[in-house]
Amino acid sequence: MDIPIIENVLKLNDEVASINRKTLKDAGVYTVDLIGSPGSGKTSLLEATFKAIGDKVRIGVLVGDLTTARDATRIAKWCPDVVQINTGKGCHLDANQVRQGLDRLKLDELDILIIENVGNLICPVGFDLGQDAKVGLFSIAEGDDKAAKHPYIVQEAQILLLNKMDLLPHVTFDLELFKEDVARINPKVSLQQVSATQGLIAPWCDWLLSHIAQDCTV
Amino acid sequence: MDIPIIENVLKLNDEVASINRKTLKDAGVYTVDLIGSPGSGKTSLLEATFKAIGDKVRIGVLVGDLTTARDATRIAKWCPDVVQINTGKGCHLDANQVRQGLDRLKLDELDILIIENVGNLICPVGFDLGQDAKVGLFSIAEGDDKAAKHPYIVQEAQILLLNKMDLLPHVTFDLELFKEDVARINPKVSLQQVSATQGLIAPWCDWLLSHIAQDCTV
Repeated sequence: MDIPIIENVLKLNDEVASINRKTLKDAGVYTVDLIGSPGSGKTSLLEATFKAIGDKVRIGVLVGDLTTARDATRIAKWCPDVVQINTGKGCHLDANQVRQGLDRLKLDELDILIIENVGNLICPVGFDLGQDAKVGLFSIAEGDDKAAKHPYIVQEAQILLLNKMDLLPHVTFDLELFKEDVARINPKVSLQQVSATQGLIAPWCDWLLSHIAQDCTV
Repeated sequence: MDIPIIENVLKLNDEVASINRKTLKDAGVYTVDLIGSPGSGKTSLLEATFKAIGDKVRIGVLVGDLTTARDATRIAKWCPDVVQINTGKGCHLDANQVRQGLDRLKLDELDILIIENVGNLICPVGFDLGQDAKVGLFSIAEGDDKAAKHPYIVQEAQILLLNKMDLLPHVTFDLELFKEDVARINPKVSLQQVSATQGLIAPWCDWLLSHIAQDCTV
């Protein structure tokens, strides 16, 4: 009995996601859904992004969390356009939550919207939010087997970021093995090494900037 | 419409969990449900546990993963009593999956069963599997805000392990802040610092051993 219900939930989600996508496209906002485990460095990546290109483009942020506004508070130091979405025990954002978040942003003033999903490498992958691209964030502190063990985010992402590269001398991590797993699961995906806390995120910023219209950049 | 369905799913899960609990109690097996993010070190903790006390007690393992048998393969080097449960896109183990796993173990020969749940700090918390205790595993590489941001596992766990303490010199982590968050959310829970890859897991082993009947130990 529950299968039709789940289909309806997903169908409803997809319909709202389509509305979100049209809203964002009409406003000229390039939107990414940032997905990673708790502690993979999503908020640190956003902080580093504002430091690096916050003066070139206007970036808005929707932050999903079970509880607390800690991430939004961190981001608000860099960005006036941040909305926190608390999901309670909900393990992912859905399109309707994003819809409500969009209503609180001045989309016409934004070039980019980054949706920082709930810290979870599984459930957020299956929900369309209306984004242009899903971005998968791994950390080398999580171990080199994580692409193989979480293939769905690797399949769905347009770009994968491998964060905390500064920890490489201190952890056991076979970079070639990780790259091979990614290439096997999704030969088309771009895999970039970054260190958010060290500000070494140029490939990510270049990728973001490449997706916004020329006349949006200063 | 979906609320009754979800209630039924949870009710059915709880009924099967009760059967599991009786089965395990009758067999004299102390059972823990190990919950942590991808890369928090669940499998490394199990490897270290077998090294430390594998000759004292007989430990069985059920391993949940989306896909691959990598964790079970690692554990099988230490332990003949390991069963892999692949959940596909399922973000947590449920009681029925555990029920099927139990059928493949010789429970009468075990003292302890460790269920390594799917790497996910959210969804596994809400599902009773028939365990005696839930154990929450954090890693200091994930950042010091993770107890506050994931309060449900802190509330539900009987013991919390803070892993990868060997990385403390290389990451920004306020240990006092983390301890304060844990104490505020669950004043009764035991919080222990460990380093699985360094074999520094004595508090965890002591806790495990304290829960098995005297006549089970050699």
